[in-house]
Amino acid sequence: MGREETIRSGFGQLIGVEWLSFDPEDARARIKVQDHHLQPFGVVHGGVYSSLAESICSAAAYFAVRDEDMAAMGQSNDTTFLRSIGEGYVNATARIRHRGRTTWIFDVEMTDDEGLVCALARITIAVRPRRR
Amino acid sequence: MGREETIRSGFGQLIGVEWLSFDPEDARARIKVQDHHLQPFGVVHGGVYSSLAESICSAAAYFAVRDEDMAAMGQSNDTTFLRSIGEGYVNATARIRHRGRTTWIFDVEMTDDEGLVCALARITIAVRPRRR
Amino acid sequence: MGREETIRSGFGQLIGVEWLSFDPEDARARIKVQDHHLQPFGVVHGGVYSSLAESICSAAAYFAVRDEDMAAMGQSNDTTFLRSIGEGYVNATARIRHRGRTTWIFDVEMTDDEGLVCALARITIAVRPRRR
Amino acid sequence: MGREETIRSGFGQLIGVEWLSFDPEDARARIKVQDHHLQPFGVVHGGVYSSLAESICSAAAYFAVRDEDMAAMGQSNDTTFLRSIGEGYVNATARIRHRGRTTWIFDVEMTDDEGLVCALARITIAVRPRRR
Repeated sequence: MGREETIRSGFGQLIGVEWLSFDPEDARARIKVQDHHLQPFGVVHGGVYSSLAESICSAAAYFAVRDEDMAAMGQSNDTTFLRSIGEGYVNATARIRHRGRTTWIFDVEMTDDEGLVCALARITIAVRPRRR
Repeated sequence: MGREETIRSGFGQLIGVEWLSFDPEDARARIKVQDHHLQPFGVVHGGVYSSLAESICSAAAYFAVRDEDMAAMGQSNDTTFLRSIGEGYVNATARIRHRGRTTWIFDVEMTDDEGLVCALARITIAVRPRRR
Repeated sequence: MGREETIRSGFGQLIGVEWLSFDPEDARARIKVQDHHLQPFGVVHGGVYSSLAESICSAAAYFAVRDEDMAAMGQSNDTTFLRSIGEGYVNATARIRHRGRTTWIFDVEMTDDEGLVCALARITIAVRPRRR
Repeated sequence: MGREETIRSGFGQLIGVEWLSFDPEDARARIKVQDHHLQPFGVVHGGVYSSLAESICSAAAYFAVRDEDMAAMGQSNDTTFLRSIGEGYVNATARIRHRGRTTWIFDVEMTDDEGLVCALARITIAVRPRRR
């Protein structure tokens, strides 16, 4: 995608985020479930969903504001877990719901490969002038 | 700690959770910040805090109910980010606030090595009879 | 609507909830803003949005499960405030996102009379066999 | 308390908020449960807890910043319901957890008259220069 910046995220890379779109109206990313994403009962760890939702919204906000010399930082991450999966992809789609002067709100839906919802997240991103 | 079960959590191991106590009244764990925990601005990725909070509460609930043949699964994870850090440990302490028949609620405080709060989480764990 | 049960809710009546639909896929209710809904700065008090969201989801879940002798009780209410208004209606639409065995999740959108979003809520309703 | 400003809140008055302290480290308020606070099952409506938590934190923040010509507005309200009551007082205590430049975070505990926790809330208040 020619977005070298995202490559520098150690954590996104550690957990295996694959970026598909940074459009705030329809940002998409996914993670291919591997053994290191599971918790002891053999299903995807809740932190994987929270982390994927955080990654996608932070990145979408960042790319949307960086040309205005603004920074985007996560402020809150509320994730609700609905369905456990143990294989396939976690497919996340984020949609911006509010683009305020200092705060952006995203809704994120995470589904399995059949399109069934595994988790929902509401993410608040603080958007601020970049400090130098 | 003689808690071999926790070792089997691929994700806890991937992100480097060090377990210190599973007591639901004062569960403790920490993560030593490394480059692979950072987001592109060089501070700890929000997903690290959410994941650590999720891990500690799930584990504390699991060890508290497994002898009654119950399972514990995360139901929701609300994490608020207050302060950015880029090195040292993220130190998490979880305290149970409600021990219902089907739902447990934990408050988690995550601090840096000076004891300053970096993130707060409220975690809801569903406790259910184990299916066989 | 021939739903006399809802009339017995003292609080719904106190805050002026007008019921429009109890369909969990598209539940709707509204409140006509009056002086007693305002906070000191002259805009609708955040509690009005939280209360309206709680009312609509509890009622929609209740009517959906009561014939199975189940009860529906609010478990958590996460409301985010996006835009302040001081007059007109607060128009709420709730849509069920998850219909689990013990937990239902709703998303609620609350708009002003121009359709602009004032608040978003995610409501978790516990569904349980009714105790006698 | 000589805080006539709070009297002007129509909604606080409508739901019967009694103010006890505006100290952000230990803000306190309560509501005496009456029939108009109940939902159809005869217990306090979830919106009462959310509204009380919102009121107490907004007021505590407002009195703390108004001399600096700042305004305080609720940004999010996450309330978790733990125990149902049908009479007595709902007693709320709020404690500030983060006093950022633009965002304040409070934890609110609401108990019955025996001190048992009925609900917990985490409230985010946006603090901004007052527009004229």
